[in-house]
Amino acid sequence: MLIVQKYGGTSVGDLERIRRVAGRIARYRDQGHDLVVVVSAMSGETDRLLNLAYELCPDPSPRELDMLVSTGEQVSAALLAMALKHIGYQAKAYVAFQIPIKTDALFGKARIQDIHTEKIRRDLDQGNIVVVAGFQGISETGDITTLGRGGSDTTAVALAAALKADLCEIFTDVEGVFTADPHIVPKARKIDRISYEEMLELASMGAKVLEIRSVEFAKIYGVPIHVRSSFTDEPGTMVVEEDKSMEKVLVSGVTYNRNEARITLHGVPDQPGVAAKIFGPIAEAGIVVDMIIQTSRPDGKADMTFTVPRTDYQKALKVVQNVEMDLGIEEIEGDKDIAKVSIVGAGMRAHPGVASKMFQVLAEHGINIQMISTSEIKISCVIDEKYTELAVRALHEAFHLESPVQEE
Amino acid sequence: MLIVQKYGGTSVGDLERIRRVAGRIARYRDQGHDLVVVVSAMSGETDRLLNLAYELCPDPSPRELDMLVSTGEQVSAALLAMALKHIGYQAKAYVAFQIPIKTDALFGKARIQDIHTEKIRRDLDQGNIVVVAGFQGISETGDITTLGRGGSDTTAVALAAALKADLCEIFTDVEGVFTADPHIVPKARKIDRISYEEMLELASMGAKVLEIRSVEFAKIYGVPIHVRSSFTDEPGTMVVEEDKSMEKVLVSGVTYNRNEARITLHGVPDQPGVAAKIFGPIAEAGIVVDMIIQTSRPDGKADMTFTVPRTDYQKALKVVQNVEMDLGIEEIEGDKDIAKVSIVGAGMRAHPGVASKMFQVLAEHGINIQMISTSEIKISCVIDEKYTELAVRALHEAFHLESPVQEE
Repeated sequence: MLIVQKYGGTSVGDLERIRRVAGRIARYRDQGHDLVVVVSAMSGETDRLLNLAYELCPDPSPRELDMLVSTGEQVSAALLAMALKHIGYQAKAYVAFQIPIKTDALFGKARIQDIHTEKIRRDLDQGNIVVVAGFQGISETGDITTLGRGGSDTTAVALAAALKADLCEIFTDVEGVFTADPHIVPKARKIDRISYEEMLELASMGAKVLEIRSVEFAKIYGVPIHVRSSFTDEPGTMVVEEDKSMEKVLVSGVTYNRNEARITLHGVPDQPGVAAKIFGPIAEAGIVVDMIIQTSRPDGKADMTFTVPRTDYQKALKVVQNVEMDLGIEEIEGDKDIAKVSIVGAGMRAHPGVASKMFQVLAEHGINIQMISTSEIKISCVIDEKYTELAVRALHEAFHLESPVQEE
Repeated sequence: MLIVQKYGGTSVGDLERIRRVAGRIARYRDQGHDLVVVVSAMSGETDRLLNLAYELCPDPSPRELDMLVSTGEQVSAALLAMALKHIGYQAKAYVAFQIPIKTDALFGKARIQDIHTEKIRRDLDQGNIVVVAGFQGISETGDITTLGRGGSDTTAVALAAALKADLCEIFTDVEGVFTADPHIVPKARKIDRISYEEMLELASMGAKVLEIRSVEFAKIYGVPIHVRSSFTDEPGTMVVEEDKSMEKVLVSGVTYNRNEARITLHGVPDQPGVAAKIFGPIAEAGIVVDMIIQTSRPDGKADMTFTVPRTDYQKALKVVQNVEMDLGIEEIEGDKDIAKVSIVGAGMRAHPGVASKMFQVLAEHGINIQMISTSEIKISCVIDEKYTELAVRALHEAFHLESPVQEE
C-alpha cells in the first residue's frame, strides 16, 4: 500500500518522540508499505517563531512571516529523516519548493493548487521513505507560503490525493473523533467510521481533530483518512464516503463552539438592499459572519441577528454603528457570552424528528434557544454560554451516543 | 553606491540588536545607497540546531543537516526584513533557492558556482532593501546546501562580486583586523588597510575576522571589503588590492595557531615514492596536513616532520604506524603541545632580513624553533605551545607593530 502519514506537533514534540515516530514508520516499512510522511513543527515552535515576529513589530509583513514560521516544519522534516536513516532506513526530507507544492499567494492562508509527484514517485521507487515539511507551499513567484494553522493535515491529504495513495493516516494526540468532548462528557465514545460530511460539520464546530480544509480535500478526491493517536497502536476513526451503515446512525456527535458573539439589530427597514449595506462593510472589515437570522415584524421593519467570531465582536459592533443612522436602525445590542451547540449526523436526512427532539431536550433543562440554524446533517442552537456543558451532556444522553448504534 | 553588507550572528543576536541593525541600514538608505544585506543566524541558533541533530543521532545525514541548519539564517532574514518594513522601509527577504544562489552538492562545505542577480536588481530598482539569508545555497538537483562555518561572509562577497557592488561591508563583533590578538598583545593596533594576500595569510592562521574563502573570492573579483564593528560607527579595516603604501610595511601582523600537532618520522628510507606512501593514506583518512619538512641524514635515510589538526592527531599517528613496518621507518614520535607563530607582511618581498630577525627575536627569548615554513609574505615557526604568548608579544614589539608605519 502507498500510505501518506501525518504526524502533528505533539507527536514530534521532542527528540525522543521523533525517535518513536521513526520507529513506527519503520514498522510500516517493514510490512512492505510505501510511505510519504508529512510533519508539523515541533510543538511550541510555531508559537516561538510567531512570538519573535510580534515582539519585533506588531504588524509583521505576511510574506516574511510565512518565510519565518515555515522553518518550524523544515526542522522537523530534516530531523525525522535523520532519525530514519540512523536506524537504517533510506529517507529523504523535502520542503515545499523542492517538490514543489504550489499554492496561491495568500500568505498565511494559502491554498494548494498543484503538487508535482515526479520526485516523490522516483524516491519511492528507489526505496526511500519521503518526509515532507507540512503547512507550507510555494507561490508562482517563488515566495514561501503557509496554509494556516492545521495546514499540515491539508498537506497530507493533498499529497495522498495527488499520489492516489491508498490511505491517509493522521497521527495526532487524541485517539480519534469522539461523540462529544470527553472533558465534558465522560461517557463520550470514539466513533469508528464517520462520513466526510459529518466530519466537516464536526470540524467546523471546533472538534479540533482534523483541519476542515483537509476534510474538504479528502471528500473531493475520495481520500480515506484514518485519524489516530501516535501514542498507541489502537485504531482511531476512519473518515470515509458515507455508506448505508451510517444512515442508520441518527446523530454521530454533539459539539459546541464558544468562540462566537451575537449581534442583534432591532428595527431594520425591511427593504431590498439593506442586508448588503450591513454585511458589505462587515466583510470589508475582514469579519466572517457565521449564522444570520432575519425576522419580519408587524410594523414592516425587521430584526436581524448574526454571529461573528468573539475576537471581532467590538470591531463588528463599530461597523454596524457606523451604518445605524444611515439605515435608520432602531437599536443595536449584542452578547459575547453565547455558545453554539450542535448535533451532527448523516441519519438526520431520513429522520425528521431529530430537530424537535433537540429543542425538547434543551427546554427540559431550562435552556433558552436564542438562534437556530440547520443544515441537512446538522442542527445548531445558540444558547447562553453558561449552559454549554449541561446542553452537551443532556443531548449526548438523550440521543444515546454512549452506545455504538442508536436506532429509532 | 551599491553596498552589500553582512551582519554576523552576534550583530543579530536578539530582537533589540535586529532593530538596531535595521536602524543602521535605514541610515545608509537615507543617504541614497542601494543595499543588499546578508545575515547570519542569530548567535547560538546554529549550535542549537546542530545539537538537536547530534543528540538525535551521532551521524546525521549531511543533506538533512544542511536543510536543518539553513533555517537559522532564514529566520534572521525574515525578521530583519520585518524590522525594516516596520520602520517604513521597503524590504524583501530571500533564501538561497529564491535568488538562486547555486552551489555544488558538497553538503556542509558547498562552493558557490553561480548567482542570478535579476530578482535582486529588479527589487533594488523598485526601491527595496534586499535581505538575503547567508551561509546557504541550492544544488543543481534542488537540495539545500550550506557553505560551512563563516559561510555568510562568502555569500556577501559573492553577491558583491555578482552585483559588481562598490563595497562589501562585513559587520562583526570586533573593530577590524589587528596587528595581533589584543587579548595577548594589549598594544595591538587596528590595521587601516591590508591586502587580500596578507588577509588570507592572517585568516588562515586563525585571525577569525573574515572567513578565508570570502577573502579568496574578494581577491579574484576585486571586491573591496570593509571589516567593521556593528556596535560602533568607527571605520574598521579595508581589505583591498595591494598598493604602493603597503610595500613599505615590513610586517602587518603577528598571528598564532594552537590547533595543530606535530608528528616526526625518524629514519625514513630516502627513496622515490616514500612520501606518497606516507601522505596518501593520511589524505585518504581525510586528514589535512599543513607543514611538511624533510631533512636528509648522512646515513642515507631521512627525517620527516609534518603537522596535522590537533583533533586528528591520534588518527594520524595510527595511519603512519600502519605503514611503519612496511616502509622500514625507525621511529615515530609526536607532540600535541605545539604552536605555530607567524608574521605576515606584503613588505617582506622586498626585504630579505625579516626571517633572520624573527629567528633572532625568538632565540633572544630562549624559544626553540622546531619547524620553519615560509611563503612570499609569511614566515611561520613551530614552537613549544607554552611560549605562544611570549613569542607573539616579543615579535609584535620587535617589529614595532604598535606604530602605524615601520620602515627599515
